[in-house]
Amino acid sequence: MKKGLSHKEKRKEYTFNKLKELGQGIVADVEQKKVPSLKIPSRGTGNIVYDDAKKYYVLGDRYGRRSLGNVKQIRKMGQMVFTANFCKDLVQREKTATIREMYYVSEGWGVEFNTQQESNTVGEDLEVALGTTREDLGLMPEEDGASVYGDLTLLDDDVELNAKKSGKSGYTISPTIDQVEFLDCGVERVLAVETMGMFHRLVQENAYDRFNTLVVGLKGQAARATRRFIKRLNTELNLPVYICNDGDPWGFHIAQVIISGSAKLAHVNYDLATPNAQFIGVTASDIINYDLPTDPLKDIDVLRLKELSKDPRYQTDFWQTEIKKMLKIGKKAEQQSFSKYGLEYIVDTYFPHKLGIEE
Amino acid sequence: MKKGLSHKEKRKEYTFNKLKELGQGIVADVEQKKVPSLKIPSRGTGNIVYDDAKKYYVLGDRYGRRSLGNVKQIRKMGQMVFTANFCKDLVQREKTATIREMYYVSEGWGVEFNTQQESNTVGEDLEVALGTTREDLGLMPEEDGASVYGDLTLLDDDVELNAKKSGKSGYTISPTIDQVEFLDCGVERVLAVETMGMFHRLVQENAYDRFNTLVVGLKGQAARATRRFIKRLNTELNLPVYICNDGDPWGFHIAQVIISGSAKLAHVNYDLATPNAQFIGVTASDIINYDLPTDPLKDIDVLRLKELSKDPRYQTDFWQTEIKKMLKIGKKAEQQSFSKYGLEYIVDTYFPHKLGIEE
Repeated sequence: MKKGLSHKEKRKEYTFNKLKELGQGIVADVEQKKVPSLKIPSRGTGNIVYDDAKKYYVLGDRYGRRSLGNVKQIRKMGQMVFTANFCKDLVQREKTATIREMYYVSEGWGVEFNTQQESNTVGEDLEVALGTTREDLGLMPEEDGASVYGDLTLLDDDVELNAKKSGKSGYTISPTIDQVEFLDCGVERVLAVETMGMFHRLVQENAYDRFNTLVVGLKGQAARATRRFIKRLNTELNLPVYICNDGDPWGFHIAQVIISGSAKLAHVNYDLATPNAQFIGVTASDIINYDLPTDPLKDIDVLRLKELSKDPRYQTDFWQTEIKKMLKIGKKAEQQSFSKYGLEYIVDTYFPHKLGIEE
Repeated sequence: MKKGLSHKEKRKEYTFNKLKELGQGIVADVEQKKVPSLKIPSRGTGNIVYDDAKKYYVLGDRYGRRSLGNVKQIRKMGQMVFTANFCKDLVQREKTATIREMYYVSEGWGVEFNTQQESNTVGEDLEVALGTTREDLGLMPEEDGASVYGDLTLLDDDVELNAKKSGKSGYTISPTIDQVEFLDCGVERVLAVETMGMFHRLVQENAYDRFNTLVVGLKGQAARATRRFIKRLNTELNLPVYICNDGDPWGFHIAQVIISGSAKLAHVNYDLATPNAQFIGVTASDIINYDLPTDPLKDIDVLRLKELSKDPRYQTDFWQTEIKKMLKIGKKAEQQSFSKYGLEYIVDTYFPHKLGIEE
């Protein structure tokens, strides 16, 4: 893993060159007495396509041009160039800024942002224009990613650390996860769960050793950093990924976004989606087979299940069957409902069965 | 710190004995042919008192009796005894359960909980009846606490770790923070900030070394584990605690709950409140003195500020002045708004000034 440039250095070089190209293109336009303009792939719904081969959403080939020759676009193009310049500075100095900080920094730009929404959009424009991620540009979301427990050794700057020795709540995936190198790994798989309650249960029952796994606590909808981390584990370390969430449409979709990415982030799914990650439960079949304590589906659950059944990401036999079954029984169940059979049951019985592990 | 029983062992012994006493009391009642009953300090608003000497809310001396002689109380008393028995088992086996897991476990009790609210209340009843904390009883909330970065060495079970070597997002305070021993500490103070955006800024600018401090990222309203951790740093390691939040009534109150505790948890504030922790900003004076970018106060902000001005916890000159000033200027400001002067300004200028540190 240590030949030539490190993972972090490669991404820095790539991003820096992309930013330089952006500026050089504008300078070239000026020198050739052309009106400077930028080609930006369209992020409109009409250009978001589910790629059957890749198994995640990608952008199609439509694009727009943003030109200084169009009065309406001058302000936005100015903001993009200022933002790109700000990012170049961040990348060079190996710093990051939150998108909120950038919003305030823009006060000095003359084309400052009026709202946070405006600055967020320009950040995404830059991602898609350059084919890089916001994180590589040094722009960070506020929130950290998931918690990880288990035998994975990481290098974070000059600090070597192991996710089995970072405390009971594990190692926290920072927004700068692509700055981290994977040094060593003593596990065979990754098991991601929706709640920190379940995470702590798995840690307490030594699931990391018994199943030879990393345990990931997603904390609900997975942050971009979490999705990126899971993809890196899957592609760089060849670890199979299993996801177990609450048995309801929201739990289904937390898994699906890890697997097939979101439509909104179609332009960065190549870095975020893990198409061979596997959802192992809680399914409608589990609710029946394990006779779990349930709650009735609410109207909004039913509506969401019907939406999912039409979503291109759910067009497999497995999903179609499970969605129909859940609508039929009209019930949902939480991960933690296995505690009906005792705190240890889920680790002693359910997970070994689902993972195909004989203890 | 290592004489006799460890911090963790002492708390275990105390809690176990309290649980045993509860059972022995009931057995004694039965043996003496008395109707078993439990004395439970009242948690009603009439019994929550602000203690001027302690500087936090405590319970007064009113209490009620829960008796098996009262038909209405039989069910609740049964739940309390089952819960106490469940907790005794947890404490003995050094395990924990989430309050959600306990809710499901109760299915087998015959007096199962009908709602999560019901089981939460019984958990709090037990806290107040025994004079111990829910965490010591092995009952955990779902969420983890804050992130900590800096030179603090901890012992978590048999794992020794340092919060400066746990990754860029630091060490995560787990709900079981009283299971952790403080082994060594190379800092002089604690600096807690409201957002993870500011936490990452402080880490990135080496504030931990420059200010010889632990950096704590509160993630909004501080979890119980975070408040307990801060109190332990303050009382066990004698570290002064400084808090910096957004300059609005919500940021004020996040600080105040760390300092003076909440009314709702009056029965455990002895373990959670840090009365000599100090709020250093963002104040209304800061907004003026640093000419910060602001947002206008909304109606709900004004309402909240007026509430706070009457709250016993805000009856100091400092708070009365700052609340009045904020109402007068009609403006609020976020921590990150200092970025107007550049990303480093808050660390280079604001914090050294507030902490009285010359670099």
